Amino acid sequence: MNTKTVEELLKHDTTLQDVSVKGWVKTFRANRFIALNDGSTINNIQCVVDFESFEESLLKRISTGAAIHVIGELVESQGKGQRLEIQVKELEVLGDSDPETYPIQPKKHSFEFLRENAHLRTRTNTFSAVMRLRSALSFAIHKYFTENGFYNMHTPIVTGSDAEGAGEMFRVSTLDAKNPPLNENGDVDYTKDFFGKETNLTVSGQLEAETYAMSLGKVYTFGPTFRAENSNTSRHLAEFWMIEPEVAFMDLDGNMDLAEDFLKSVLNYVLEHNKEDLEFLEKRLLDEEKTKPQAERSDMSLIEKLRFVVDNNFKRVSYTEAIDILRNSKPNKKKKFKYLINEWGADLQSEHERYLVEKHFKCPVILFDYPANIKAFYMRLNEDGKTVRAMDILFPGIGEMVGGSQREERLDVLVEKMKALDIPEEELWWYLDLRKYGTAVHSGFGLGFERLVMFATGMSNIRDVIPYPRTPQNAEF
Amino acid sequence: MNTKTVEELLKHDTTLQDVSVKGWVKTFRANRFIALNDGSTINNIQCVVDFESFEESLLKRISTGAAIHVIGELVESQGKGQRLEIQVKELEVLGDSDPETYPIQPKKHSFEFLRENAHLRTRTNTFSAVMRLRSALSFAIHKYFTENGFYNMHTPIVTGSDAEGAGEMFRVSTLDAKNPPLNENGDVDYTKDFFGKETNLTVSGQLEAETYAMSLGKVYTFGPTFRAENSNTSRHLAEFWMIEPEVAFMDLDGNMDLAEDFLKSVLNYVLEHNKEDLEFLEKRLLDEEKTKPQAERSDMSLIEKLRFVVDNNFKRVSYTEAIDILRNSKPNKKKKFKYLINEWGADLQSEHERYLVEKHFKCPVILFDYPANIKAFYMRLNEDGKTVRAMDILFPGIGEMVGGSQREERLDVLVEKMKALDIPEEELWWYLDLRKYGTAVHSGFGLGFERLVMFATGMSNIRDVIPYPRTPQNAEF
Repeated sequence: MNTKTVEELLKHDTTLQDVSVKGWVKTFRANRFIALNDGSTINNIQCVVDFESFEESLLKRISTGAAIHVIGELVESQGKGQRLEIQVKELEVLGDSDPETYPIQPKKHSFEFLRENAHLRTRTNTFSAVMRLRSALSFAIHKYFTENGFYNMHTPIVTGSDAEGAGEMFRVSTLDAKNPPLNENGDVDYTKDFFGKETNLTVSGQLEAETYAMSLGKVYTFGPTFRAENSNTSRHLAEFWMIEPEVAFMDLDGNMDLAEDFLKSVLNYVLEHNKEDLEFLEKRLLDEEKTKPQAERSDMSLIEKLRFVVDNNFKRVSYTEAIDILRNSKPNKKKKFKYLINEWGADLQSEHERYLVEKHFKCPVILFDYPANIKAFYMRLNEDGKTVRAMDILFPGIGEMVGGSQREERLDVLVEKMKALDIPEEELWWYLDLRKYGTAVHSGFGLGFERLVMFATGMSNIRDVIPYPRTPQNAEF
Repeated sequence: MNTKTVEELLKHDTTLQDVSVKGWVKTFRANRFIALNDGSTINNIQCVVDFESFEESLLKRISTGAAIHVIGELVESQGKGQRLEIQVKELEVLGDSDPETYPIQPKKHSFEFLRENAHLRTRTNTFSAVMRLRSALSFAIHKYFTENGFYNMHTPIVTGSDAEGAGEMFRVSTLDAKNPPLNENGDVDYTKDFFGKETNLTVSGQLEAETYAMSLGKVYTFGPTFRAENSNTSRHLAEFWMIEPEVAFMDLDGNMDLAEDFLKSVLNYVLEHNKEDLEFLEKRLLDEEKTKPQAERSDMSLIEKLRFVVDNNFKRVSYTEAIDILRNSKPNKKKKFKYLINEWGADLQSEHERYLVEKHFKCPVILFDYPANIKAFYMRLNEDGKTVRAMDILFPGIGEMVGGSQREERLDVLVEKMKALDIPEEELWWYLDLRKYGTAVHSGFGLGFERLVMFATGMSNIRDVIPYPRTPQNAEF
C-alpha cells in the first residue's frame, strides 16, 4: 500500500478502501478526531479513531507535534468542516512529542517567539503557508524567465571588487583573525589570504550579469546578496535573495515593460497555484488588521491587492513630474513630511514614495529619469546631462520593489563618470571591455525577493518571509 | 518592425519581407557574408551584404565582436550550410570591436586563455553552449522538484555553526582586520562582530533543510556552498552550487529511487531541449579526444553517455560487496592501485570508484551501507552497529556525483554519536529538537551542480562550467 500525501487524499473524488498516510498531529480532539498535516497543503486530514479499539496508552501519545502513521479507509465525512476523512484501522506513533515541553502549542504564538523557534515555525499554518508561497514564487520566477528566452546565470558570491558601492560589505577571509600577516607597510597582507587579495560578499551580481547579457542576450541571476549595514528594521536583512535580469539591445522603456510583465506574471502564478494558502493568509491579515485603528487598515484584502497589481497598468511618472506632485501635495504644504520637498534633485524618502503610491496614484508606480547624482555610476546619462535612465517600481505597503536602469554603453561617458567618482579603471577593466568590444544599449533591474514575498503573503516583517533571517547580532541556526 | 532573435528567425517556415535582428559579428567573409549571433542559439544567421550598396567605411567596421543591427529580407539561402539567410537592406554598427585588440579572435583559443577572459568567453561557441546547458539544467532541477511536490528552500549562507564538519570554512566578519577587538582572555572578541559571534560561509544546507522537511514534508535547496580548501585541481572550487533535497518519511531505498529518477529526469530534459548545444559539444569532445592516446578515449560520445544514464538502471552495490570486488580486482592484485584495498573499512579513493564504474560495472553505481567511522555523524546507524545508511552515486568520468543518507532519527543514538565526536549539543540544540518532537525516518542527498554540468557538457575542468570560478589565489571579476 502506497503512502499518500494529505493533498493527494483530499483531492480524491471517491472513497478508498485502504489508505496510508504519515504526518504530524495538529490537534487531537475528544479522544477521537486527529487533525493530521504533512506539509503538502495547508489543510489537515481528519482521522477518526474509535477509541475503544486502541490501547489508552497509545492514544495518550497522540499529542500535538507527534509524527504518526495512519492506515484506514477514506470515507465521506459525517461531520461538518471537511468533505473526506479517514476511519482509522491502524495507528502507529513514529515519534512522540512531549506536550509539556513542545514549543508549538495549538494556540497563537507571537511572531517574535516563533523567530526564536525558527526551526519549528513552519509547523504553524502561517509559516507553512508563507514558505509554500515563497517556493511557488521562486519557481514562477524561473519559469517566467525560461519561457521568455532568458538564461539563468550564477554570479559569484565572493568578490574581489567593491566597485558597485551598493553598501557596506562583509569581509571573507581565512587569515588568522587575531594575528593576520602584515606587509612591509604594516597593513594586513591580503596576498597571503585564500584568494590572494581582499575579498567580500557580493552586494549585487549586476556587473557580472552584464558580461553575459552582452554575449547570451538575455540572462538573469537569482542568488543571495549581502549588506553589512547595522539596520535593525522590519525591512532589512544582512543576507537576502535578489533577482537581476539583464538584457542586451533593450532600452529603459523595454526594461519597464519587462519588469511590469514579470511582476504580473509571477503574482498571477501564485493566484492560480496557491489559492488555499493565500486564502488562509488573507484571513490572518484581516484578523491582524482588526487590532489596528481604522485609519491604518488596508482598503483591500490580500488577494484583492494581488489582483489589483495583476489587472492594472503601472503608472509611469518621471522623477520631475513626481517632484511637482510632491511639492504641491497636502503633507508637503502642511509640513507633515519629515523631509520636505523643496526642490528638484531631492532624494525621495519612503514617506514620499508611499504618498505617491498609496495616496496619489493608488497603484504601483514606475518612477524614471532620476537626477544623475543620486544614482549609481553605471546608469545611462540622458541628453539633458543631468538625469539618468533609472527606474524604481514602487508598490503599496512595500515601497521600492524594483530598481533598474538602462546602462551607460558609451565608453567615454562611463570612464568620465568613474573618474569623477574615484572608481579605479583597473578594478573594472573587464566591465569597460564590454564598452570597447561590441557595445550596445542594454538594461536590467534588481528585485529583492523577500520584498516580493512580503507583498504576496501580507507579512509585515521581512524576518518572517525567509527561513533563517540574518540580521545584526543574529546568525542563529 | 519588431526585432527578432536569431533563434526565432532560424525557426521560420516561410520567408519574411522585413526582419530586424541585432547581435554580434562572429565572422565577415568575402566582404559579403556576415555570420551573426545573439546568444539565443548556437547557430548564426547568415546576413548577405551587397557590398556595392554600402560605404566601404561602414563595411570595414564589420569585424568579429562588433555589435550590429541588420534590417533585411529573410529568404531561402542560395548557398550551402544554411536553410535561411538575410538579404541585408540596412546595416548599422552599434558598437565597434577593434580587430587589433579584441581578445576573442575567430580561431581556437586555449581554455586557460579564455579563463583569463572569462567576461568574454561566452562569446565563443563552446562557452555559450556550456552556459546555456548550465541554465537548462538549473531549470530542469527546479521543474523536477516542483512537479514532484517539493518546496524550494533558501538555507542561510552565513552560518554561526560549523558542526557539519564537511570541510574548512571561510570566516565572515566586519571586525577591523588588522586590530580586532580582544576579550579579557586575549582572544578575538566576536561578540563585537556583526552577528555577535564567529560566523562562516556555509558548507551545506542539509541540517537546516532537515528542519523544513520535518514540517513541509519534501524540500530542496539550490544554493552556493563553500570550501576553504587549498586544492588546485580540475575538480574543486572554493565556491560551488549544491542541490540538497530532504524528504520526511523516506528511507535509504526511497532516497536511491529519488536520486536515480531525478538524475535521469534532468539529463533527459537537456537531451530534449538542448539538442543543438549538445551536438556541438559532442563534436568538440570528439575533436579533443582525437589528440589523446587511444586508451584514454571514451567508448561513448557525449550524447551516448547521457542516453546511457537515462536509459539504464543504476547498479546498487553495498560497500561490503564493493570491497570484495576491489580486493579481487586485477589492479589490486597487480598492485596498480596507489592505495591497495586490503580490508573492510578502507575509505574508497577516486581510483577505486572509477574502477567500479568504468571497468567493472560500466554504468552509474550506487554504493550504500558504508562503515560508520568514515561517514558523517548524522547518518543512520544500521542494526549491525558498524555501518550507516549512506549512499554515494558514482558516474563514469566524474566519480562521486551524489552523496546522501538516511538521517539518524533516534535522539539517543544521535546524542551518543555527537558525544563520541565532541560535537557540543548546545550548538545543534535545534537539530536535536527534530528528534525530540515528532521524529521520523527521513533522508536526503547532496549533488554538486558543477559536477552535473561537467557530465552533461563533457567539459573536463570544473572552472569551465561556472561563470566566474573561485579557486585558491583567484577571485577575479
